[in-house]
Amino acid sequence: MPLETRYSDYDIRGHVNNATFLTYFEMARRHVWARLAGVTQDFNFIIAEAHIRYVSQAKFGDPLAVDITTTEIRNKAWVWTYRVVDTRDERLVAEGSTVQVMFDYGSQRSMPIPEALRPMLQGA
Amino acid sequence: MPLETRYSDYDIRGHVNNATFLTYFEMARRHVWARLAGVTQDFNFIIAEAHIRYVSQAKFGDPLAVDITTTEIRNKAWVWTYRVVDTRDERLVAEGSTVQVMFDYGSQRSMPIPEALRPMLQGA
Amino acid sequence: MPLETRYSDYDIRGHVNNATFLTYFEMARRHVWARLAGVTQDFNFIIAEAHIRYVSQAKFGDPLAVDITTTEIRNKAWVWTYRVVDTRDERLVAEGSTVQVMFDYGSQRSMPIPEALRPMLQGA
Amino acid sequence: MPLETRYSDYDIRGHVNNATFLTYFEMARRHVWARLAGVTQDFNFIIAEAHIRYVSQAKFGDPLAVDITTTEIRNKAWVWTYRVVDTRDERLVAEGSTVQVMFDYGSQRSMPIPEALRPMLQGA
Repeated sequence: MPLETRYSDYDIRGHVNNATFLTYFEMARRHVWARLAGVTQDFNFIIAEAHIRYVSQAKFGDPLAVDITTTEIRNKAWVWTYRVVDTRDERLVAEGSTVQVMFDYGSQRSMPIPEALRPMLQGA
Repeated sequence: MPLETRYSDYDIRGHVNNATFLTYFEMARRHVWARLAGVTQDFNFIIAEAHIRYVSQAKFGDPLAVDITTTEIRNKAWVWTYRVVDTRDERLVAEGSTVQVMFDYGSQRSMPIPEALRPMLQGA
Repeated sequence: MPLETRYSDYDIRGHVNNATFLTYFEMARRHVWARLAGVTQDFNFIIAEAHIRYVSQAKFGDPLAVDITTTEIRNKAWVWTYRVVDTRDERLVAEGSTVQVMFDYGSQRSMPIPEALRPMLQGA
Repeated sequence: MPLETRYSDYDIRGHVNNATFLTYFEMARRHVWARLAGVTQDFNFIIAEAHIRYVSQAKFGDPLAVDITTTEIRNKAWVWTYRVVDTRDERLVAEGSTVQVMFDYGSQRSMPIPEALRPMLQGA
């Protein structure tokens, strides 16, 4: 998924700011979740944990893309893993992961991943 | 009101990004609105218009402050005017204004400024 | 130009935050400026003024686009005018304008718009 | 260190957005680094890694503070650990850590932590 970067993503050194990568991860999540529509419209998740490793600098103008993979599925939670690359040469810019917990906003509690969703997450 | 700037407020040239000033205006509004509490907790407004004039560059590290003044009160709307200055020498960095319209989210309609609020806005 | 909105563009009411529109304008400028490449790579401008009028609410999920038109060309400055619309029905969400001043970062001074750039701005 | 939150820090559910916490960490770092001035003005670091665990929801209006502690000092890198709490009852909202690597922008290489800086980091 190609990333449309914004001028405000860059810091005073001309590099993508370290906090911005979590926003890139979020864009990837939203993209995947929208693709799973039909099932996902009734379900919500919260982010329990996030981890990022900054590998190389993304400079102003570098064309970036992010990919997202499901790397673990537990009872109530799953892990998505991300790679942000420079699309010109697949150079790795940053990689990371987030832990999502299925969440019922009505009861304000975590809940098991619905059966209908499990295979879709696996295929994501 | 002194502004706590953030690293992400600055662009790749090391200046406060032009879009960030609207966030500074927002911080000033929130500050004023909180001071009027007791009355304001029951009322809402929406922003109908915003104008900014960029006067001089705010560089990374420059200590900034924003002030806000009510400069016009109409039937349903009022104007707040802002000045962002460098606190070391009162150098003007940017100035602007926003038009607020009293809004009832229940009926999704604009409404007259409540009588109890008018003198408070005047004094703001 | 279609806008790739981000989750963080929306405020607690689920509407695009008023400050975010200046970022949308910036994305449109960057897009136009990149199209004029060849000429524009040697030139810079600063933003002297910005104006926005909020016409209707952009809710989470509304597909948005922005267009940009040159509406005035002076000696050292020009005006770009923007319209942000909901692409489903061309409903106007916000409109605004910014004044750009040609700027020489070397001498830190404004400068006349180069002759080579004038027709390109006119066509933008 | 009390956090001056911004309206744009909150997402459409009225909670501090998950990406925003990295910005809060950044504010804490900048604060510490400024306190070490005299020594730190000649040195730079880059962020190599970041980790966040979201513990409880920070709702709009909750007064927040962040503290930062040095929890490990290696040859070229050190770890800062953060806690974001609700100041009313010290409820933990989020905690995390970042790995900083001493960096020489001139040679674009990592470098050992200067001797003069080590005790200051320890005391931070």
